Amino acid sequence: MSGKVFLVGAGPGSVDLLTLRAARVIENADVILYDALIGTDILQLAKPNARLINVGKRCGKKALSQEDINDMLIYWARSGDVVVRLKGGDPGIFGRAAEETSALRASNMDFEIIPGVTAACSAAAAAGISLTDRNVASQVVFATAHHSEENSDRSFASAARDGRTIVLYMPGHNYERIAGELHRAGISLQTPCVIVSKIATTDQQVTWTDLHSLASHAALPSPSVLIIGEVARRPGSQAADYIANWSAVAQQDFWAHHEEDRKITA
Amino acid sequence: MSGKVFLVGAGPGSVDLLTLRAARVIENADVILYDALIGTDILQLAKPNARLINVGKRCGKKALSQEDINDMLIYWARSGDVVVRLKGGDPGIFGRAAEETSALRASNMDFEIIPGVTAACSAAAAAGISLTDRNVASQVVFATAHHSEENSDRSFASAARDGRTIVLYMPGHNYERIAGELHRAGISLQTPCVIVSKIATTDQQVTWTDLHSLASHAALPSPSVLIIGEVARRPGSQAADYIANWSAVAQQDFWAHHEEDRKITA
Repeated sequence: MSGKVFLVGAGPGSVDLLTLRAARVIENADVILYDALIGTDILQLAKPNARLINVGKRCGKKALSQEDINDMLIYWARSGDVVVRLKGGDPGIFGRAAEETSALRASNMDFEIIPGVTAACSAAAAAGISLTDRNVASQVVFATAHHSEENSDRSFASAARDGRTIVLYMPGHNYERIAGELHRAGISLQTPCVIVSKIATTDQQVTWTDLHSLASHAALPSPSVLIIGEVARRPGSQAADYIANWSAVAQQDFWAHHEEDRKITA
Repeated sequence: MSGKVFLVGAGPGSVDLLTLRAARVIENADVILYDALIGTDILQLAKPNARLINVGKRCGKKALSQEDINDMLIYWARSGDVVVRLKGGDPGIFGRAAEETSALRASNMDFEIIPGVTAACSAAAAAGISLTDRNVASQVVFATAHHSEENSDRSFASAARDGRTIVLYMPGHNYERIAGELHRAGISLQTPCVIVSKIATTDQQVTWTDLHSLASHAALPSPSVLIIGEVARRPGSQAADYIANWSAVAQQDFWAHHEEDRKITA
């Protein structure tokens, strides 16, 4: 009898941000292939005799190749096991689920995807902000900072547009390059942004800045996400309070007046 | 003693797609203000004496205004209660959390956002696809179909671009208009799309189509999301198998040959 493969989103890290369905599937798994960032408190949900395999980068060892992971999923499922492929966040957002579902389909292997809380949503919640906002952000785009050199069509900067929040997954530490690319794409250097690093761990850190200051900011610990746009304006600041209540047009008037006031005072 | 407000993402609908943290917070709540789409199996997690208030649209009654909801959150929390504002999906994605956090901050009310599984991730999981794909989709954008008439800058069609998956929340039933706007924005009518309606319920329905056929498709039940882009190509089709394994450049060659083959056969 053939087994089944579950591609499971573990959420951003904290065990209580697992879904009930994910927790149940992990508890029933015979074999769990997990990424390096999955915490031990999540793995402890597994049966005592479950086979736990770290397929991510480990101290001194390279990560397994995607082909090796695909082969292992199929191998264990063919031997009748319930196999869990445990990924951080949601499997369908920068989780390389497409490669795995393709291999599973090619082998006629039964599989199911269990969605999870993606890092962007967890980071926004930690910062106490919303990624969309009826006044200032009618869209949100998720991108990575990896592609811009090899292929400008895929650059995250192509997503830059007023009224669209950008969330960069795996932004890396070349903040200057990120700020520069977005600025060249037409985004003001005064655009607010927030970095949430070590999301959903006890070391979580929320850093408010703007594109101008980001460029020279000290590197923040990985993993992190970078949220760019008006929604990322530090809450509690006078500007953020106005923005939360005013339309985009009213805001422009406010800033025009504000600029005038500053000139008169100076 | 003042209470606290939790803005809680309930996920797409099914009770087991709640996070463990959301379930715990619901179990401890004194007052729960919930949207119309929250299922009774989720509300049954509440304490027997919890006050449950439907703030969404109800048979024959209008939904409460956002201002009324804000006032109620603050009123109950001020009287010392643990208040849960329970929303479908994730609070930070088209959940109007910005208005509520703004009101809570203005009242110096303690609050916390609990992230959830957003509808796009659940829909993709149900369809067995990934929203991003190293070969064909390096970005994903979430938008709604509501804004295009009133403000073209906010139109979802502005997000159209090769290599970027578009997920439309609340697409409505004017599929012809959606297809038309995307086509005028440069998206091929052969672009695959998938509608997942009644997400994460027993009536869930996955409908594979393309922009051309979408335009004349019968209306599918709400709530639904519409996923547009190469990732939405029906898995198992010959084309999808090629795409899963090939680079974008190789695909173009494939389609060129495919076109030639068809001409010769015809």
